[in-house]
Amino acid sequence: MKHTKTAVQSDIEIAQQASMKKIMDIASLLDIEEDEIELYGKYKAKLSLDITKRLHNKQNGKVILVTAINPTPAGEGKSTVTVGLGQALNKLGKKTIIAMREPSLGPTMGMKGGATGGGYSQVLPMEDINLHFTGDIHAITTANNALAAMIDNHIHQGNDLKIDTRRITWKRVLDLNDRALRKVVIGMGGPTQGVPREDGFDITVASEIMAVFCLAKDVADLKERLARIVIGYDLEKKPVTVKDLKVEGALTLLLKDACMPNLVQTMEHTPAIIHGGPFANVAHGCNSVIATQMAAKLGDYVVTEAGFGADLGAEKFLHIKTPALGFNPEAVVIVATIRAIKMHGGMSKDQLKEENLEALSIGIENVKKHVETVEKFGLPYVIALNEFITDTAAEIDFVKNWCQKNDIPMALTQVWEQGGDGGLELAQTVLAQMETKKPAFTPLYLSEDTLEKKLEAIVTNVYGGTGVELLPAAQKQLQQIVGEGWGHLPVCMAKTQYSLTDDAKKLGRPENFTVTIRELKPSVGAGFIVALTGNIMTMPGLPKEPAALKMDVDEQGKAVGLF
Amino acid sequence: MKHTKTAVQSDIEIAQQASMKKIMDIASLLDIEEDEIELYGKYKAKLSLDITKRLHNKQNGKVILVTAINPTPAGEGKSTVTVGLGQALNKLGKKTIIAMREPSLGPTMGMKGGATGGGYSQVLPMEDINLHFTGDIHAITTANNALAAMIDNHIHQGNDLKIDTRRITWKRVLDLNDRALRKVVIGMGGPTQGVPREDGFDITVASEIMAVFCLAKDVADLKERLARIVIGYDLEKKPVTVKDLKVEGALTLLLKDACMPNLVQTMEHTPAIIHGGPFANVAHGCNSVIATQMAAKLGDYVVTEAGFGADLGAEKFLHIKTPALGFNPEAVVIVATIRAIKMHGGMSKDQLKEENLEALSIGIENVKKHVETVEKFGLPYVIALNEFITDTAAEIDFVKNWCQKNDIPMALTQVWEQGGDGGLELAQTVLAQMETKKPAFTPLYLSEDTLEKKLEAIVTNVYGGTGVELLPAAQKQLQQIVGEGWGHLPVCMAKTQYSLTDDAKKLGRPENFTVTIRELKPSVGAGFIVALTGNIMTMPGLPKEPAALKMDVDEQGKAVGLF
Repeated sequence: MKHTKTAVQSDIEIAQQASMKKIMDIASLLDIEEDEIELYGKYKAKLSLDITKRLHNKQNGKVILVTAINPTPAGEGKSTVTVGLGQALNKLGKKTIIAMREPSLGPTMGMKGGATGGGYSQVLPMEDINLHFTGDIHAITTANNALAAMIDNHIHQGNDLKIDTRRITWKRVLDLNDRALRKVVIGMGGPTQGVPREDGFDITVASEIMAVFCLAKDVADLKERLARIVIGYDLEKKPVTVKDLKVEGALTLLLKDACMPNLVQTMEHTPAIIHGGPFANVAHGCNSVIATQMAAKLGDYVVTEAGFGADLGAEKFLHIKTPALGFNPEAVVIVATIRAIKMHGGMSKDQLKEENLEALSIGIENVKKHVETVEKFGLPYVIALNEFITDTAAEIDFVKNWCQKNDIPMALTQVWEQGGDGGLELAQTVLAQMETKKPAFTPLYLSEDTLEKKLEAIVTNVYGGTGVELLPAAQKQLQQIVGEGWGHLPVCMAKTQYSLTDDAKKLGRPENFTVTIRELKPSVGAGFIVALTGNIMTMPGLPKEPAALKMDVDEQGKAVGLF
Repeated sequence: MKHTKTAVQSDIEIAQQASMKKIMDIASLLDIEEDEIELYGKYKAKLSLDITKRLHNKQNGKVILVTAINPTPAGEGKSTVTVGLGQALNKLGKKTIIAMREPSLGPTMGMKGGATGGGYSQVLPMEDINLHFTGDIHAITTANNALAAMIDNHIHQGNDLKIDTRRITWKRVLDLNDRALRKVVIGMGGPTQGVPREDGFDITVASEIMAVFCLAKDVADLKERLARIVIGYDLEKKPVTVKDLKVEGALTLLLKDACMPNLVQTMEHTPAIIHGGPFANVAHGCNSVIATQMAAKLGDYVVTEAGFGADLGAEKFLHIKTPALGFNPEAVVIVATIRAIKMHGGMSKDQLKEENLEALSIGIENVKKHVETVEKFGLPYVIALNEFITDTAAEIDFVKNWCQKNDIPMALTQVWEQGGDGGLELAQTVLAQMETKKPAFTPLYLSEDTLEKKLEAIVTNVYGGTGVELLPAAQKQLQQIVGEGWGHLPVCMAKTQYSLTDDAKKLGRPENFTVTIRELKPSVGAGFIVALTGNIMTMPGLPKEPAALKMDVDEQGKAVGLF
C-alpha cells in the first residue's frame, strides 16, 4: 500500500535498502541480558520468558492499542501507522516497543499485501517475517496436526474413548490458502488406512491452538489450556478433550520454543516484538499475551494492534485478551483514510481519485461508530487520518472540521513516506490524551452474564444493531454449552470484517439491523465461545493470479516480487 | 538404543547433562568467517553457501560412508557409530566433520528412536534436532503444499493447462505419521470449494521436494530442478511441470534459507553438519549434496551416513548422490551387531539374550553380501561390530574369526558407552584401509544403460537376486518414461529395508529370487526414476501407544520423555 506522494519504490525495495542494526544491539538498549536472548541470524532473536519474571516488580509500560474503521479494499494502513507511531514516540524520547502479530503465509502467497507495515514504517527483515520467520506458525501447524493424527489413530486402534466420528470438531490445518482442502474425506483405502470420515482443513492462523498460544500466560498455562481443548464428542455426546487423549505434554513440547517472543526492529531501529498471529474473524486477532506482557516490562510505551476494525479486533482485545493480560490499554488509535471513508460513503474503488465531500460526509459515520464504541469502553482515543496521494485539501479539511465539531481528537499521519517523522503529530496527540484523560476501562459485559446477554451487549453497543437472533442449531448448542459449564466464557464473534453488520456489503453505519448467529462453537482451550455469523471463511482460497507467480530469488540470492 | 554395559541413563538424560561449546567457537575452529554464519540460538547455526565458494580451490576432504546390514528390530546403531567414528578421528588429530540427515518428526512422535545417535555418541542439542531444528523440513512441507494448492487453484480457476484431475501425481505432505491421510478425497462441498478429486498425503521426507533439496548443488540448481518437477499429466497425457505452473520462483523463495546447512556439535564437540533428510526407501536416503560438499571443504575427513542397509542407502549414495556430489567416498563402514546378525540367522527379538553361534553363522551371510556389494563398487571398507551388553565373548570371537578367515577388515566399537574412545579401533582400521587401498570407484551401471539394465544391475549385483520382473503397469510406464526422454536417469529403488529381497520377511542372505517392479514413477526434478517394489509406505501410521504419550515439558522448561 503506497501512501506516498513521491515514492516510486515498492515496500520490499525500500526494506532491502534499509540498514539494520544487529539485533543484539537492539536488545542491549532494552537491558536484555545475554543469556535471555537466542539469536536467529543477525537480525532476529527469540527472547526468554525469564525476562518477564526478572522484571516482575517493574511497573508495566502504557499500552496504546491501534485499531481502525471497517477495512475496505482501499486500504487503511493500520500496521503502517502502528510502526510509524512507535517510531515517532521513540523520536520524542519515549522508550517504546511495538508489539505486532506474525503474518500468515496464506495471504502472502495469495494476494499482494502483508502485515509488516509499509514504506518507511516497516518492521525488518520484512522478507523473513513474511515467510517462515522463526518457525512459530510451523510449530503451531505441527502441533495441530499431531493432535489430529492422534485422534484418528485412537479411533483406528480401537477407539477406547468411543469418539463419535461424526462429531469430531478438531480440523487439520495448513498455513496456506487452499480451498480444495476445506471439505475432505479422509481414511479412504480400506481397513489398514484408518477410519473414513468427513474432515476439513483450516488455515493455521484460524486454529484454536493459535488462539491458545496467544492467550497463554506462560508454558504451564499453555499446557493447561491445551489439555482443556475439546476435540469432539463421544457416542454419548460428552466432550472429548486433549487430556483424555493424553497428548497435552507432547503438544506443549512442540510449542515450547515457539512461546519465546521474537524481537526485530523497524526501519528506524525501534524494537518490535512480533509474536502469534490469530485471524481476527474466527479467532481473537491479537498478538500473544506473553509478548505484550514482556513488551510492557521492557518499554515505557507499547504500541500494539488488533486485527480488522474496532468492531472485531479491538472488541476482542478488550473482552478476551485484556483479562488474560491482566491490564488494559490506556489509549486507542483509530486509523482511517479519506479513501476508505469515501468507500463507506458509497464510492467504488475506481472512483476514489475523485474528490467527493458528500461521500465523505456519509462514510464518516463509520468512524463515528467506532469512536462511540471506544468511548463506551472508557478509553481515551485519537483518530489517525493516514494521508494518501489522492487526498484533496478540501477532503482533509472536511475531516478535520468534522472532528473539531464533534470534539474528537485527531492527527494526520504521513508514516509511509516519512517514517516516524510522519507520526509525530499523532504521537503528541496520543500522549496529550493520555496525560489529560485517565482511562476508566469498562468491559461491556461481565463473565457472569449469560451468553445471550454477552452477544446482545456486543451487537447493540459495538455494532450498533438492535439485537441478536440465534438460529435453532445455535440455540441447541447454547444449551449444551451452558450444560457443560462453559457459559462463563467470553464470546468471540466470527463476523465479516467489512461491515458493522453480518452482511459484508452493508458499509458505512447501518442502523436497525439484527445479527444472526448460526452456530456457537466452544473453544474451551482458548477460553471463548465462537459465535459464527454469516459465511465466515476459515480456509481462504487463492485468486486466479496468486502473488506467488511473481515471487523469485535473484542471482544474488535476494527475495524478489514478495511485495 | 542402549549399547552400554553399565549406563542406566537414557539418551536424552545423557544429552541434557552434556556441556556444549558455543556454536560460534565450533565454527571458528573450522575457520568459518563471522559473516558466513547465522546463529540459531547458542548451539545451532546455519552456514552460508559462500563458504564452499570461498574454498573452491581447496582439495576435498576424504568422505567415509557409514552404512549397515539390513536393519532389524534389534537395532544396529548406525547413527551412533557415525558420530562415534567422527569423534574418534578427531581424537586421532584428524580434522573431521560429521554430515548427517535431519530427523523427521513423524517417527519421533510415533515410536521411540531418533537419528541423533545415542549414549556418548550423540549430536546436540538432541531435543532441538529431533523436534523443529532450524525449520528446514517445515519449509519443505510448505513448498510442497504451496505447489499442491497452486495445482488445485489452477484447475478451479479454469484449468488452462488442461490438467487431467485423474492423473495428478503430486501429493500433499505432512511431517507426521498419519495413516488416515494416505488416501483422501478433496474439493468436496460444492462449486466454490474446488474441484473434487482423489488425493493423498505422504510424509514430508518421502517427497520429491526433499529429494530435490538434497541433490541440488546450489540455489540456482535447486530452482532448475524444481521447475522440472512433473506434477501430473494433461488430457493428452503429456507431462505438466512446475515450470508450466510458473511457481518455481516462489518455491525457491520458500526454500532459500533452508538451503543453508546446519552446524551443530557432538558430545565431544566434533562439528556436525545436519542437513536434509530424505527417506531411504522411496527417496535416496542421504543428507544434502550442499552440506556434504561444504563439509568436504571444511574438513580433511567427512563421516557421513546413508539410510537403512547398504542395499538401499549406500547403493543410492553411490549411484544417485555421487554424480551430483562430483566425488565419491574413499571408504565405507558397514555397521553390524551380534544381536542383528542373530536375527538374520532366524532368532526372534526376545531370544537375543541367549548365545547362539549357529544363528550367527547363518545371519552373518547378510553381512557378507553387503561386503561383496561394496567390493563391487571398488571401495575400501571396514565392518564395525557395535558391541552390546548381551554379546558373549564366544559370539564376538566368532565374528572376529569369520572376518579374519574371509580377510575382511573389522573393528569392535563401544561408541554408545565410551564416545570417541569407543571408536578409536574403528578409526584406526578405517585410516589404515584408506592408506593401503586406493579406491577404484566403479558404478554398477552407466547413465546410458537402459532402465531395465539398471534395474537388473542393482538386483543382481546389490541384492544378490537372479533378475527383475516388471508388472504390466510398470512396463507401460517404462515406455512412457523412455518416450519422454527420461531413460538416462538413474533408478531409485523403493524396497523394504528389512530384506535384500522385496519381501520384508526374508532375512539373512536369500538366493534365487527375483524382484517384482509394480510401478515406475518419474521424479524428474530429483533426477531419478522411482521403481516401486512390494508395498512401500510413503506415509507411516502411528502405533497403538505413540511415543508422544510420554512426551512433556517439565517445570524447568526442559523436554521430557523425548527418547
